[in-house]
Amino acid sequence: MALKINKNYKKIKKNYIFTEISEKKSNFLKSHKNAKIIDLGVGDVTRPLNKNMVAVINNALNEQLHKKTFKGYPPENGYDFLKKQIVNYYKQRNVSLTIEEVFVSNGACCDVTNILDLFKKNKTIIANPTYPAYYDSNFLQGNAIFLRDANQKNNFVLSPKNLKKRSYIIYLCSPNNPTGTVFTKQQLKEWVDFANLTSSIIIFDCAYESFISDVNLPHFIYEIEGAKKCAIEIASFSKMAGFTNLRCSWSIVPEELNINGYNINSMWSRRQCTKFNGVPYCVQKGAEYALSKNGQLECKKNIQYYKTNLKILTKCLKSLKIECFNSMHTPYVWFKCPQNYTSWQFFDLLLQDYQIVGIPGLGFGTQGEGFFRFSAFASRKDILIACERLKNFAIKKD
Amino acid sequence: MALKINKNYKKIKKNYIFTEISEKKSNFLKSHKNAKIIDLGVGDVTRPLNKNMVAVINNALNEQLHKKTFKGYPPENGYDFLKKQIVNYYKQRNVSLTIEEVFVSNGACCDVTNILDLFKKNKTIIANPTYPAYYDSNFLQGNAIFLRDANQKNNFVLSPKNLKKRSYIIYLCSPNNPTGTVFTKQQLKEWVDFANLTSSIIIFDCAYESFISDVNLPHFIYEIEGAKKCAIEIASFSKMAGFTNLRCSWSIVPEELNINGYNINSMWSRRQCTKFNGVPYCVQKGAEYALSKNGQLECKKNIQYYKTNLKILTKCLKSLKIECFNSMHTPYVWFKCPQNYTSWQFFDLLLQDYQIVGIPGLGFGTQGEGFFRFSAFASRKDILIACERLKNFAIKKD
Repeated sequence: MALKINKNYKKIKKNYIFTEISEKKSNFLKSHKNAKIIDLGVGDVTRPLNKNMVAVINNALNEQLHKKTFKGYPPENGYDFLKKQIVNYYKQRNVSLTIEEVFVSNGACCDVTNILDLFKKNKTIIANPTYPAYYDSNFLQGNAIFLRDANQKNNFVLSPKNLKKRSYIIYLCSPNNPTGTVFTKQQLKEWVDFANLTSSIIIFDCAYESFISDVNLPHFIYEIEGAKKCAIEIASFSKMAGFTNLRCSWSIVPEELNINGYNINSMWSRRQCTKFNGVPYCVQKGAEYALSKNGQLECKKNIQYYKTNLKILTKCLKSLKIECFNSMHTPYVWFKCPQNYTSWQFFDLLLQDYQIVGIPGLGFGTQGEGFFRFSAFASRKDILIACERLKNFAIKKD
Repeated sequence: MALKINKNYKKIKKNYIFTEISEKKSNFLKSHKNAKIIDLGVGDVTRPLNKNMVAVINNALNEQLHKKTFKGYPPENGYDFLKKQIVNYYKQRNVSLTIEEVFVSNGACCDVTNILDLFKKNKTIIANPTYPAYYDSNFLQGNAIFLRDANQKNNFVLSPKNLKKRSYIIYLCSPNNPTGTVFTKQQLKEWVDFANLTSSIIIFDCAYESFISDVNLPHFIYEIEGAKKCAIEIASFSKMAGFTNLRCSWSIVPEELNINGYNINSMWSRRQCTKFNGVPYCVQKGAEYALSKNGQLECKKNIQYYKTNLKILTKCLKSLKIECFNSMHTPYVWFKCPQNYTSWQFFDLLLQDYQIVGIPGLGFGTQGEGFFRFSAFASRKDILIACERLKNFAIKKD
């Protein structure tokens, strides 16, 4: 009998959007050799790491030079020093955790996808539009995906209203990539109540929580009563501390989270101890520093830099009468393509006439059609050049 | 309808062996406060990293301090500079690879287990005894596991002889952990032929290949004709370059490896790009250095150190008339427990009377009963103390 392959790998759409973007970009450069393209597409940090943090990492690495301080395998779920620091970080928002509830990992992307190992085929709720990894990993697993609109009609807010009362795996992302929406406590409470009522599990992705400016908005789902009974939370040092290259993230799996008599905390621990071997000591020392008092202040400076970029970009777009939906709680501005352009038409226009690259909303789902995402993860200089170029858009339009 | 859980997480045995070892160890220390236990159990490197390599990593990290050299997300499957270096490493054994066949990852353990994502439920062949992660990950996936003896009767050599001709996922580990067996080219050829005949796939774990002393023994499965049509190879910097903490490994997935019309190379690439975000730049620079001419020489010094440890240990055991099976191609000595002790009885005896910790063979499978593994990943001083203590074994015995 032949080997049984996971055929979903053949059925899944290629991730055309990013391939197509980079092909269009390189084709353009072939015919415009001296063009200086401003890339506001990719959601990746660009600010250098803080030197105090790098010194901490270098020192930790140097411990590997000496017999007495040399370290072998890291603990699969993270060193206690970092888990304690994360517990303290949650205390700032009055959330109590035990260190057994904290799992250090090498990327939010890994955890939001690998968590599916704990389940068999289920029904999954995913927002449309949304970050593609939720969809792709659930598709590969063979789950029945229920895409639920979070579009202009409902202010891009995903809600459980009128949802059939059965058990789902529910992906929530707040602040949302790409739309910038942040759940209020009330909106998030509706999801927690729904999940507890239906024995669903929420995978709460808060990778952008450090960008939230309004103290009244929840950073963590555990700020909502009842969340520990239904939700896993996945967070990251990537955007907060510029760690996209260094790879460090964490997940919170509450000890009291039981689904049909299965304790998800001990299952996740078993999964990680079997299939994952931890994050380097020096990286975890850097992460510990990022959450220290000084570290947080330094990280905030970079976040502020990106936010100022975002303000400049948003102001420029608004001056062109472009409708913007960003709420300043992410590094992205989500806006409606002007003049009823489709998102790919607008992409081509921006590339050809302004040498600016962004992400067509369609790349995040069908409900992203007609919308566009700019990233503020760029240098101030590039942001200003982009704005200068875009001014001509108004002139051409008139 | 309730969420469907992967119930294998409840059925799987807890990894009692290592918990039990550490519990026994700490209980002993409670009643013997001044005991100096020599730990020859854990298979984890102890030698400090080479200072040239650490300088390379520190320099790479320092690039993150400057706008111009700052790097964001690493390529999911590794930087080209490291993939090229790995291609060159294979050339030393006359194996030709393209860089598209090389996938850099953060641990052999992750890849030998995550590779199962590409498959549905299948029949898996695993040696008994063996490294526990193969069994555990296949059990969690719900595969039908065919344990196949590699015991004293067949010189610990796993063979496809008399195996029913159907398709399997076949785990091979050479040099073998824990038994130390290395497949000869002929023995490996039998597996490659069997796999090609039955459309099986081989997962070849060569994490210890750098410990092979005999130039005639194959390091890589692609030294065998036909292997590119049936085998994935998984290797690591952990034992070779002391990277158990830094986390870097690689897998080879040949472009021509097709199973039932599915191209495994592009499937694995899709898997990694969806569920994994790459290895830090600085770690990959360190890995690149490890495979450079100087790097390899420096790594070999550490390997030689461990091997000398192993020689000393083996000589000591043999002088006690203990039957040893190590072939000096791993950092371990696998031996028969003397006087027909069971492996746990011998563990207790060693701990109580000699304050030495090792791994009972039973921990690697039922066919490990009556055997024991010592690791040479220790300081010379500890190895000599252990041998000194063990001398008393002979005296007591008489």
